[in-house]
Amino acid sequence: MIIVKGGVTAAKGFLASGVRAGIKKSGRKDLALIYSEEPAVASGAFTTNRFQASPVKLSRVYLKNGKHQAIIVNSGNANCANGSSGDKNALYMAYLASCGLCLKRREVLVASTGIIGRPLPIEKIDDGIIDLVEGLSKEGGDDFAEAIMTTDTVKKESAVKIKLKNGCIVTIGGACKGVGMIYPVLNTERHATMLCFFTTDAAISKKMLARALEEAMDTSFNMISVDGDMSTNDSCFIMANGLAGNKKITSAGRDYAIFTDALKFLATELAKKMVADGEGATKFVEIEVTNAKSEREARVIARKVSTSNLLKCCVYGEDPNWGRVAASCGASGVEFDPDKVDIYLGPIKVLNNGASVRNFDKEKARKVFKKHDINIKVDLKSGRYKAKSWTSDLSKEYVAVNSEYST
Amino acid sequence: MIIVKGGVTAAKGFLASGVRAGIKKSGRKDLALIYSEEPAVASGAFTTNRFQASPVKLSRVYLKNGKHQAIIVNSGNANCANGSSGDKNALYMAYLASCGLCLKRREVLVASTGIIGRPLPIEKIDDGIIDLVEGLSKEGGDDFAEAIMTTDTVKKESAVKIKLKNGCIVTIGGACKGVGMIYPVLNTERHATMLCFFTTDAAISKKMLARALEEAMDTSFNMISVDGDMSTNDSCFIMANGLAGNKKITSAGRDYAIFTDALKFLATELAKKMVADGEGATKFVEIEVTNAKSEREARVIARKVSTSNLLKCCVYGEDPNWGRVAASCGASGVEFDPDKVDIYLGPIKVLNNGASVRNFDKEKARKVFKKHDINIKVDLKSGRYKAKSWTSDLSKEYVAVNSEYST
Repeated sequence: MIIVKGGVTAAKGFLASGVRAGIKKSGRKDLALIYSEEPAVASGAFTTNRFQASPVKLSRVYLKNGKHQAIIVNSGNANCANGSSGDKNALYMAYLASCGLCLKRREVLVASTGIIGRPLPIEKIDDGIIDLVEGLSKEGGDDFAEAIMTTDTVKKESAVKIKLKNGCIVTIGGACKGVGMIYPVLNTERHATMLCFFTTDAAISKKMLARALEEAMDTSFNMISVDGDMSTNDSCFIMANGLAGNKKITSAGRDYAIFTDALKFLATELAKKMVADGEGATKFVEIEVTNAKSEREARVIARKVSTSNLLKCCVYGEDPNWGRVAASCGASGVEFDPDKVDIYLGPIKVLNNGASVRNFDKEKARKVFKKHDINIKVDLKSGRYKAKSWTSDLSKEYVAVNSEYST
Repeated sequence: MIIVKGGVTAAKGFLASGVRAGIKKSGRKDLALIYSEEPAVASGAFTTNRFQASPVKLSRVYLKNGKHQAIIVNSGNANCANGSSGDKNALYMAYLASCGLCLKRREVLVASTGIIGRPLPIEKIDDGIIDLVEGLSKEGGDDFAEAIMTTDTVKKESAVKIKLKNGCIVTIGGACKGVGMIYPVLNTERHATMLCFFTTDAAISKKMLARALEEAMDTSFNMISVDGDMSTNDSCFIMANGLAGNKKITSAGRDYAIFTDALKFLATELAKKMVADGEGATKFVEIEVTNAKSEREARVIARKVSTSNLLKCCVYGEDPNWGRVAASCGASGVEFDPDKVDIYLGPIKVLNNGASVRNFDKEKARKVFKKHDINIKVDLKSGRYKAKSWTSDLSKEYVAVNSEYST
C-alpha cells in the first residue's frame, strides 16, 4: 500500500465540486457533490441516535437501490428536527442533483451537517445546483473537502493505492469533516455529525463493500471522541465504480483482505485527523488498552477513557494526573481485575498491579504530557485482546467555541 | 416535615468534629469524625467503579457488623490505587478512631476523598486523632462539613424533623461534599467522590434502613452529574441510633414511608447543593423527562442529557441551542418515538412532535438561559413515568480548576 495525494477524486472516474450556496452566514463554501462517471455500488454507515436527520433517513432508504452515482452534501444546516418539511427538503436535494446529472433520484445519496432545528434553505441549494454540477472536476476534491467543513479548521483528505491479484492497482480516497458533537457509533445497519466519503475504483460486490466498511468503522470512527456527544447526522459513505478493472471482489479472500486493510488504514487516518482538529484541541491523545479478555472489553474501556472530561482537562493543563485514567477504566462497566492493571504515560509506568508506582519519574511523566501527541496505555494483563481510541483535550477554547455557536 | 438548622449533629445523640491534620497542602481542615453516643445501625451505598479506594473496600466489609458508632473521614487524599499499604492505612484509620473512642474497630466506618494514587500520610492522621476526638461536640457538625470539602466552595448540610405514629418526633440530618468527578452510580450493594453522611435518631431496623437509603439514592445522588466522571471513592452512609424513642420501623408501613420521604427530600437537597457548587458552575440545570414508558427509561434519558458537554457549554454561553438536548436524548440508547417528542426550555416549547417550533419566541428562550436556574423538559408522550436529573454548566473555570489540580 502506498499513500498518495488527493481525496475523493483520487480513484478513477470520480469527480467532485464544492461551491458557496449561501447557507452559511460566513459566506464560506457550503454545498458539495461527488459524481462517479460510471454507476457504482455504494454502502453507508449511520448514527445510532434515535433522532435522525432527514438526509440520514433518506440515504438509508436510497442505499437499498443497487447502483449510485452521486452524493450531494450541504454544511451549515443539519436538516434535523424539521418534521415533514425536512424530509421533503432532503428529497428535493436528491432531486435537484439527479436532474443536474441526468440520474434517477435514488441514485443520489444525501448528507447534511450544521445546526439542528433550523429550516433548510432549499431555495439556496436550488440556486447553487448549476454551479455545483458545472464545477465537477478531477481537481474538485479539495473544494469538496472544504465545502463540507463546519467548525473544522483544516480540510481532511487521504488516499492510498493498493495492488490486488494479477498486479491490478486499486485506489481508495476519502474526505471527512467533523470536530464537534463527535462520538460516533456507526455501522452499516445504523446511522453517525461526522461525515465521511470514500470513493474507490475497485470492482467489489455491494455486499462485500458493506462488510469492508463496517470492519473499517469499528477500529476508526467508532473509536474517537471529541466531546462524547453523538450526532443526529453522522454518515459515512463509500462508492466503488469498478474502473480499476480488478477481478471483482465477491468473497472474503486475499483481495478482500488487502482492500479492507487499506480502507481501515484510510478510515483511521481520517478519524485521527478529525480528533487532531477537534474543537478547541491543543493535544492529540491515543489510549491503548492491551491484554483484555475480549476485543469488546478492550474497546469499551478505551472508549470510556477517551470521554473523561477530567482526563481531557489535565491533558490540556499538561498535568499527568493518571488517577483519572484509572477511575475512568473502572467506570466503564467492564469487569476486570483492578489488582492486575498497569498504566503507562508514554513509556513511564505509573500504576503496577493496581498500585501506584511510588518513585516513578514525575519530571519525565510531565514531559510526556508536554508533547502534542500523548500515548496512554492500560495493560489489563487478563487476556490477549487490544483496542485503541483517540481523543483531544478539553480546553478553554472548546468551551468558547461551543458556548457561542448558535447565536 | 419541617426543615431545621444543622447537619450531621441535628439528630439526638450525634456529635461531630473536624480538624486540620496537615493532609491538605492548603492547611485547611482535612480530618473529620461523626460519633453516636449510643450504638447505631448503619448502612452504606458505594460507587460501582471497578477501582475501589481502600476505605470503600473496608467500609463495605465493616458494614456487615450489626452496630456502628463512628465514621472517620479524611479529605485531600483518596487512598486509592495504593495497593496493600493503602488497605493497611484504611484499617489503621479505623483503628485510631476506635482507640480514641473506646470502640471495636468494626464499629467504625471510614471514608476518604482527594487525589488518587498518593500514599495516605497516616502519621498525620495519627497525630490529629486526639484533637479530633476531643473536639467532638453538638456544635461540631459545621466543622465536620468543612473538613470533608475538597474543591467545594461551600459547606453542604441539611436537616429535617418528621412526626411518626404516636406523635414521636424524628430528626434526620446530613452533610455532603463533592463538586468534581461527580457522576455517582451508587446503591447499597455497590459503592460512589461524593461523600454523604446521614444521621438520624430514628429507631429502625438495619434492613429497613438500607432499603430507605437505596430508595433515596435513586432519585437524588444517582441523578446528578458535574462532569460525567465516576469516582473510585463515592460513599454515602447513614447511622440510626434510635434515641428518638419511636416504635421501631421494621417493615414498609406508614412510618417507613414518612421516614423514606424525608430521607429522599434531604438527599435531593444535598445532591442539588453539590451540583450548584459543581466545579466552575455558573448555572444550575434541571432536566425533567415526562411521560416515558418506564421509570428506567425516563431516568436514562434525563441522566444522558445531564452529561452533554455541548448542552452544558451552551448553558454557560446562555445560548438556547436546544438541538443539543434532542441529540442527547437520541443518544441515550432508549428506544422512544422521536416524532412524538416535545421539548421545552422553561415555559417555551421549542420542539413539537419531533419538529422544531417555527416561530417560538427566541428572545424569551434566551431569557430562560440568562437565569441562574434553568429548567429543560422533555415530554416523550409515550407513557406515564417521569424522572429528574440535575447538572451544572461547562465553563472555562471548570477547565481551569481541572487542568491545574494535581501539581
